[in-house]
Amino acid sequence: MSGKMKAVVKIKGESNGTELMKVDVPKPGPNEVLIKVKTASICGTDVHIFNWDSWAADRIKPPIVYGHEFAGEVAEVGSHVDHIHKGDYVSGECHIACGHCHQCRTGLAHVCQNIKVFGIDVPGVFAEYACIPATNVWQNDSQTPPEICSIQDPLGNAVHSVFSTDVVGKDVVVLGLGPIGIMCVSLCRHVGAAQVFAVEKKNEYRAELAKKVGATKVFGEGENAALKKEIMGLTGGKGADVVLEMSGAPTALTHGLDLLRTGGEMIVLGVYTEPVTIDVTKEIVFKCATIKGIYGRRMFDDWYRMKGLLKNPGIRKDLETIITHRFKFDDFFVAMETMRSGRSGKVVLSF
Amino acid sequence: MSGKMKAVVKIKGESNGTELMKVDVPKPGPNEVLIKVKTASICGTDVHIFNWDSWAADRIKPPIVYGHEFAGEVAEVGSHVDHIHKGDYVSGECHIACGHCHQCRTGLAHVCQNIKVFGIDVPGVFAEYACIPATNVWQNDSQTPPEICSIQDPLGNAVHSVFSTDVVGKDVVVLGLGPIGIMCVSLCRHVGAAQVFAVEKKNEYRAELAKKVGATKVFGEGENAALKKEIMGLTGGKGADVVLEMSGAPTALTHGLDLLRTGGEMIVLGVYTEPVTIDVTKEIVFKCATIKGIYGRRMFDDWYRMKGLLKNPGIRKDLETIITHRFKFDDFFVAMETMRSGRSGKVVLSF
Amino acid sequence: MSGKMKAVVKIKGESNGTELMKVDVPKPGPNEVLIKVKTASICGTDVHIFNWDSWAADRIKPPIVYGHEFAGEVAEVGSHVDHIHKGDYVSGECHIACGHCHQCRTGLAHVCQNIKVFGIDVPGVFAEYACIPATNVWQNDSQTPPEICSIQDPLGNAVHSVFSTDVVGKDVVVLGLGPIGIMCVSLCRHVGAAQVFAVEKKNEYRAELAKKVGATKVFGEGENAALKKEIMGLTGGKGADVVLEMSGAPTALTHGLDLLRTGGEMIVLGVYTEPVTIDVTKEIVFKCATIKGIYGRRMFDDWYRMKGLLKNPGIRKDLETIITHRFKFDDFFVAMETMRSGRSGKVVLSF
Amino acid sequence: MSGKMKAVVKIKGESNGTELMKVDVPKPGPNEVLIKVKTASICGTDVHIFNWDSWAADRIKPPIVYGHEFAGEVAEVGSHVDHIHKGDYVSGECHIACGHCHQCRTGLAHVCQNIKVFGIDVPGVFAEYACIPATNVWQNDSQTPPEICSIQDPLGNAVHSVFSTDVVGKDVVVLGLGPIGIMCVSLCRHVGAAQVFAVEKKNEYRAELAKKVGATKVFGEGENAALKKEIMGLTGGKGADVVLEMSGAPTALTHGLDLLRTGGEMIVLGVYTEPVTIDVTKEIVFKCATIKGIYGRRMFDDWYRMKGLLKNPGIRKDLETIITHRFKFDDFFVAMETMRSGRSGKVVLSF
Repeated sequence: MSGKMKAVVKIKGESNGTELMKVDVPKPGPNEVLIKVKTASICGTDVHIFNWDSWAADRIKPPIVYGHEFAGEVAEVGSHVDHIHKGDYVSGECHIACGHCHQCRTGLAHVCQNIKVFGIDVPGVFAEYACIPATNVWQNDSQTPPEICSIQDPLGNAVHSVFSTDVVGKDVVVLGLGPIGIMCVSLCRHVGAAQVFAVEKKNEYRAELAKKVGATKVFGEGENAALKKEIMGLTGGKGADVVLEMSGAPTALTHGLDLLRTGGEMIVLGVYTEPVTIDVTKEIVFKCATIKGIYGRRMFDDWYRMKGLLKNPGIRKDLETIITHRFKFDDFFVAMETMRSGRSGKVVLSF
Repeated sequence: MSGKMKAVVKIKGESNGTELMKVDVPKPGPNEVLIKVKTASICGTDVHIFNWDSWAADRIKPPIVYGHEFAGEVAEVGSHVDHIHKGDYVSGECHIACGHCHQCRTGLAHVCQNIKVFGIDVPGVFAEYACIPATNVWQNDSQTPPEICSIQDPLGNAVHSVFSTDVVGKDVVVLGLGPIGIMCVSLCRHVGAAQVFAVEKKNEYRAELAKKVGATKVFGEGENAALKKEIMGLTGGKGADVVLEMSGAPTALTHGLDLLRTGGEMIVLGVYTEPVTIDVTKEIVFKCATIKGIYGRRMFDDWYRMKGLLKNPGIRKDLETIITHRFKFDDFFVAMETMRSGRSGKVVLSF
Repeated sequence: MSGKMKAVVKIKGESNGTELMKVDVPKPGPNEVLIKVKTASICGTDVHIFNWDSWAADRIKPPIVYGHEFAGEVAEVGSHVDHIHKGDYVSGECHIACGHCHQCRTGLAHVCQNIKVFGIDVPGVFAEYACIPATNVWQNDSQTPPEICSIQDPLGNAVHSVFSTDVVGKDVVVLGLGPIGIMCVSLCRHVGAAQVFAVEKKNEYRAELAKKVGATKVFGEGENAALKKEIMGLTGGKGADVVLEMSGAPTALTHGLDLLRTGGEMIVLGVYTEPVTIDVTKEIVFKCATIKGIYGRRMFDDWYRMKGLLKNPGIRKDLETIITHRFKFDDFFVAMETMRSGRSGKVVLSF
Repeated sequence: MSGKMKAVVKIKGESNGTELMKVDVPKPGPNEVLIKVKTASICGTDVHIFNWDSWAADRIKPPIVYGHEFAGEVAEVGSHVDHIHKGDYVSGECHIACGHCHQCRTGLAHVCQNIKVFGIDVPGVFAEYACIPATNVWQNDSQTPPEICSIQDPLGNAVHSVFSTDVVGKDVVVLGLGPIGIMCVSLCRHVGAAQVFAVEKKNEYRAELAKKVGATKVFGEGENAALKKEIMGLTGGKGADVVLEMSGAPTALTHGLDLLRTGGEMIVLGVYTEPVTIDVTKEIVFKCATIKGIYGRRMFDDWYRMKGLLKNPGIRKDLETIITHRFKFDDFFVAMETMRSGRSGKVVLSF
């Protein structure tokens, strides 16, 4: 494979520094695979890069092709790769782990101490072709359509969150209904949670999506005290067995702990811009509560579980609902604006 | 409460030793509760007692009221009972644990070393009224109908089996489609198993029920080798992640282990009349397999999980399907014959 | 049993409101046991009651016999108690759980929603005799001396803390060297922790005790940054696998999280007088850290594990070291002053 | 590095087919490392290869250098290896996992579906130099002497066995006192097991070693019934919490299950030449027992735990005891005869 291809490139470190342009098709190294991208979806991280906020300014080195959620077809394999073949229908884990740090060698490669992420630290998938390490390639089921396979990255975050605790037959609260939060609602419903209460204070559009995927009740604006009273009532005075904090809102952690029953578990994927103040004695110690931080997806336990869950037609249908917008790749800028508006679920690009 | 009541009594140790007769209404002790029985269901154990097989002859001391699956209403509470009230809608765990042995004090009360079971060792629930210890009472949700609440004992076995392992997103094989096996199929489907393969070699009636509750595929008579080949194909050459052995058939354990993938888990609730021969080296050691024996239901973790799962309309609907026959209590002998025929799922009696 | 006995009574809600006086010997109810107390030890909670701080003023209703750590001999059993016998050598779990709330029925009786504690809410063990519920009685090994059996309450806190995580072969930091913190150091050493770093900023006396029970290194006053640098060096740049926060110091939680490696676990038993501010994004989310609150002791899993651990002569020897002072019961006020001075480990009273 | 080196080679498929001879020093591929071997120890597997039994005849393709337990120094690194350096003091995991099968990608690389083992399927370490993949290299602590680092392979089996269950404060039975069984005894003692009962019916020499590393009691020849009675007595009538079956003796599994308490766990590393007959109903189902098969060592969780445990002077001392014989490499045949005699613990060769 050689020649030129279309790609979305952050060419300059500024908010209008993204261009859709022609660049060289990359060449796979011996342990890499070249993929012809069929679909790619836009992550909140891509919005940060597009907007060029302080996080992006610290981390991204332009020019770089960005994007890290995709499905595609293997176009070429490196010389040392023998278990992946031209034509395979694949997606990929975006975290490139070193393989030899303590975390990599003990099942925590998703928080590798030498991590690189394609689309952030090395070139990504908003392009006709992309190269990724063979160890990051994931074989998709042929029955699962590319737009769903493309969003396995955020779905994997949701899987990591939900299955780091035990929601089957339990009362669950999901705080924050970004796409991952909505996916958590759907997963909890499809794996037998007793009740799933979802809270989204700002974005009515996404609150509606959570209803569509089966939230027992969605709470919007309003007093936390009233919300607590209602949830206590609906759980027989017990409180939530599990709280999934997906919002990153400054008060969400405290609010979530207040809803949690004694002996319950809180899962935290939300990212906070400021430190958070917690009444540790009351909410953690005397409650014997457990709090677990979540980042990325377990490689590849969460991917295997996700593949199994994607055999469920109900989950696939929910994901089709969560993908609210589909664009051609050439309409990248419209797609990005849609994502930035907040009036969307997942936005998927296709070639 | 005093006077006489109708009851099913094993009056003599012989196969025609059961009578539907009038006996005294029992009086609750200080830590007991008197229940007006609304529904009671017939367990395989009740068939053993009715038939008076060798197990029954060893264990049961006639005359005794039998039956241990029920739903009803609290009619009277003992003098020391303050958290249960007249009129409460309840079922009950049939295992009366001593509360002070090692097992009772470490979360294993279901295998208490001094266990008694009502309907087996002390009088049971095939009667208008029954007394059980307050600690065994379970508060039902008012929305769940009595016939479903009545079968929480076997459903609890299924919950114990399925949630002693991890089936979410996994390929599961269920061996043996008695009522508990069928319930396992249903639960696995409703909590997101990837595929649920069910095997029932003798009873076509029950194989049909497993299809109705959503088994991916039900295997009947036929060669184990062919079955294995098909399951290996449907799991991408991997084999089953989890095998639930609910049959007690002499060769089922070996067959199940043969279907299990390396690193998989086998759950065994089936009861074998003979010792079983296993190729331990190949099927357990080199496979790093885990085998877990299951008895009863965890008190009361499994009951809480069950209560949460019963909020799921799909599970309730499956249970309505699994209850294939409903009789009035006075028709006990017809009900028992139906159960003995094997051409039934659960059989429920009501007053 | 009848007549009068000596007892330590909080007779008035004020700091000099404790008296050593004669009161009636209590009578066991049907489900209770009367114990002749041999040894009793002083807990930090008893100091709060003695001092009559705001916690005590809110919780304690004088007059009441206090004290909840003891070993003794059964003097009399209630009419319904058949598994405990006169002469049995026992201690007891001080939390009286209701037995029927959600927590009690799911293995979390130590955080029962209707908890009462003897020595706090009902009469305690600083007395010649004490009545406790039969379900709270713990049978001691005859080889373990009373002074050690007496301190199983705080040792049980340490067992709960240490075995809520995985310290075997791990690098552990213990923050705060009150008696429970020192016991954690000892337990970690005796169950094969790789290294145990202990931090105590204020109390040199107790820092010395931690050295005696085998801390790899004890850190006293000094900059957290320097301490971190040293611990990072001693752990090969990785950080602590486990942090046990036993201090309740305002900055300890943040300090502990800073020492924790990515993917590590923090156990929190310390009680904070103020809310705590945490950089959740950096220290929990991106680290995939787990935080677990600890209260009491698991009933009775932790007691069984403790009984097993007490067979270890090394652990028994450490506990003899941690018991720094022994007094006769009549010298209660001297014993209490010793405890209040901070220049002690555990202080044990005996008759 | 080039030239010739001394090596132990299986040159022919027969019992006298081993030669100590000169062969070419191997050259590391791009992802490999060349190691100068300092010490190597003899595994039971090496005895099978030496003896040329039916397992060896099926698996081994002469000529091949065998041996897979070692410690040494990195002499040269492949072109793609950047985290290992010339002079590093290392050992290595002998299982070469493919990295891309289901098991490899879900934390079960030790049972990779495409496994190769150096010293069995590819050239091993009974040689002055050996090449192994960089991913298999383990960095040793400089304080741990080479003879101990050399036996991390069997010690890792013991770590895998013991830490697949929970022995802290528990009553443990170890069946079979080969070197790995003796290591299990030592580990259980050093991580706080309550009591460790060891059973070795044939080899008194090794029974003595188990006593030296602290077994509570070692049982030799004699009736299983008497042994059971004694263990039941010593465990207060409860039975063993954990049984480690390391013998592979035909009746050991049944015997072990008979000693196991209700709710206990059995770990099986022993390899049986014949299928085993088990009373599954009584010993597994009604006991709610768990059985786990063990193979290899978890890569690299068990290695990290082992590194931490090796900081414990008591464990290192026990390992020095378990290494009963030390030979120079040139005395390989004497060393092998010592190992074959059964009158040894571990036998270590050094250059």
